[in-house]
Amino acid sequence: MPELRKDPIVGRWVIISTERSRRPMDYRQIPQELPEGPCPFCAGNEAATPPEILAYRQPGTAANTPGWEVRVIPNKFPTLMVEGQLDRTGEGLYDKMNGIGAHEVIIETPEHQRELADQDPGHIQKVLSAFVARMQDLKRDLRLQYLMVFKNHGYRAGASLKHSHSQLIATPIVPKAIKEEMYGARDYYNYKERCIFCDIVRQELDDRRRLVMENKGFICIVPFAARFPFETWILPKGHSPSFEEISAEQLPQLAAILKETLQRMNLSINQPPYNFVIHTTPCNQNGLEWFHWHIEIMPRITRVAGFERGTGFYINPTPPEEAAKYMRELSLT
Amino acid sequence: MPELRKDPIVGRWVIISTERSRRPMDYRQIPQELPEGPCPFCAGNEAATPPEILAYRQPGTAANTPGWEVRVIPNKFPTLMVEGQLDRTGEGLYDKMNGIGAHEVIIETPEHQRELADQDPGHIQKVLSAFVARMQDLKRDLRLQYLMVFKNHGYRAGASLKHSHSQLIATPIVPKAIKEEMYGARDYYNYKERCIFCDIVRQELDDRRRLVMENKGFICIVPFAARFPFETWILPKGHSPSFEEISAEQLPQLAAILKETLQRMNLSINQPPYNFVIHTTPCNQNGLEWFHWHIEIMPRITRVAGFERGTGFYINPTPPEEAAKYMRELSLT
Repeated sequence: MPELRKDPIVGRWVIISTERSRRPMDYRQIPQELPEGPCPFCAGNEAATPPEILAYRQPGTAANTPGWEVRVIPNKFPTLMVEGQLDRTGEGLYDKMNGIGAHEVIIETPEHQRELADQDPGHIQKVLSAFVARMQDLKRDLRLQYLMVFKNHGYRAGASLKHSHSQLIATPIVPKAIKEEMYGARDYYNYKERCIFCDIVRQELDDRRRLVMENKGFICIVPFAARFPFETWILPKGHSPSFEEISAEQLPQLAAILKETLQRMNLSINQPPYNFVIHTTPCNQNGLEWFHWHIEIMPRITRVAGFERGTGFYINPTPPEEAAKYMRELSLT
Repeated sequence: MPELRKDPIVGRWVIISTERSRRPMDYRQIPQELPEGPCPFCAGNEAATPPEILAYRQPGTAANTPGWEVRVIPNKFPTLMVEGQLDRTGEGLYDKMNGIGAHEVIIETPEHQRELADQDPGHIQKVLSAFVARMQDLKRDLRLQYLMVFKNHGYRAGASLKHSHSQLIATPIVPKAIKEEMYGARDYYNYKERCIFCDIVRQELDDRRRLVMENKGFICIVPFAARFPFETWILPKGHSPSFEEISAEQLPQLAAILKETLQRMNLSINQPPYNFVIHTTPCNQNGLEWFHWHIEIMPRITRVAGFERGTGFYINPTPPEEAAKYMRELSLT
């Protein structure tokens, strides 16, 4: 059973992952690239993964056989486990609990070589729908407090397999980074009686220097205090706290702007490794007035060093206005 | 002039670094290793660096010539600039200020190949003395609020040059990560009327499962909620808020435990890239009762992925007790 441990000073939780346990020998040779070889995520290899939880498939095809377009499975090496009780306990001044949660993989395509940015918007919409469906289902488990959907693309961004996929990890506590966002947005709301994200959307649409693109429902910006060169955020224009409540009208708009953002990033800086994370409200639906879901897309083209580790300060060598201008003015055709 | 920008939601500061400005083309080819070639930090190449601020050198040798053992210079590409005013201003809902501060490099040895772990303890003591001397000097500049000493060893840990060196960055605000530590330690003190770090030292000395080693003045532990495999912390046994107030008696003890920690880490996991950071009280000497300086040593052998980026949660695949046992039981001879 994995264990959740809390740093007693800053309150940061760490997952001590027993399913992925590694001994000193395992660190002697660290690979620099993703492994090649038979891929458990390819169509035809469904038996190499745990049974599917959800799949969008052609009518008449059986579960765990080819014929699917998007397929969701439990992670074979889960970071957190679904079965069991939290059993919160202390150990002297330390706090810990069992690593209860869920860890699922969204296989975005049956094709090994097709990246998310190269899918047509209709297919990306199906991937987004799978996120929504899994989140709505997991929210019914009252032990879970937060649902984090994220994507690791490329070895340096933390991916373990090349085949295009995203992940969903459900945690039994609200993560520190989300709490900080919630508290910051709440303080602003208490002071201004406005959602800070709505204010950011208004200011960026007015200013336009950090705007990469917009469509009817969404904007894509390089944030004012971007941590990483060519970092972008996608935000709904109207106030919306929860990603998983996205409307049928918004879904194709989001698929379109996500595709174009990834394309513009790929063209600007040569297909970088990247992460994206979806920030949404906690499962208890706290913060409906002041929280506003959004996607943060972070290319992994700079290194994080001791200064960042020690201070939490980031150093970004590319001004956000320059990155946004470059991405905005690229021709996609 | 670099610019400090604040994320309006979570209050995280970012340095938009103009001295190191990079355009999209610069990200097309990302190197995977440190460059070879003439080294500006080697003895004889003193003219390739800015003039030295401090050097421990043989009597009779002139500044900026060979004959030194430890040499401190301003960073040629500083992240923050010493000259100027902060000029705090707003831009709509955003906050920014000029990137005022200091950025120095501590060249730990004139020899290109000699790593810190391979120096004798007497030499490591000189490196530590240089940290202390520079911190005591910079504290007199009232614009500076925090002094962060850190080391990036190896390409993947963020180093730009192979030659053994550490850095000191002085910032005009107290970094977020330090504020969190200060607040956490203050809350504990308010509740318990004891320093949380002193309590950690007591519990770890009693428990011993996470203890790597101890000497008269210091302990080295794998922290209970270690973020990274084989992460270690060195703490003074007695309550001491500020690193730069270290006593003449403690200095050789610290040099000895730092050397042995690095040696045990190197032997355990094959000379990993690593960072260390020294956490000390802010320049205003806030928190003298509840803060306790320490060194955090973080090997870079796992990748930080989207989940960590999104949540602030870390996943550590090696239980701290196992890492500590392995490091403790290694034979160094």
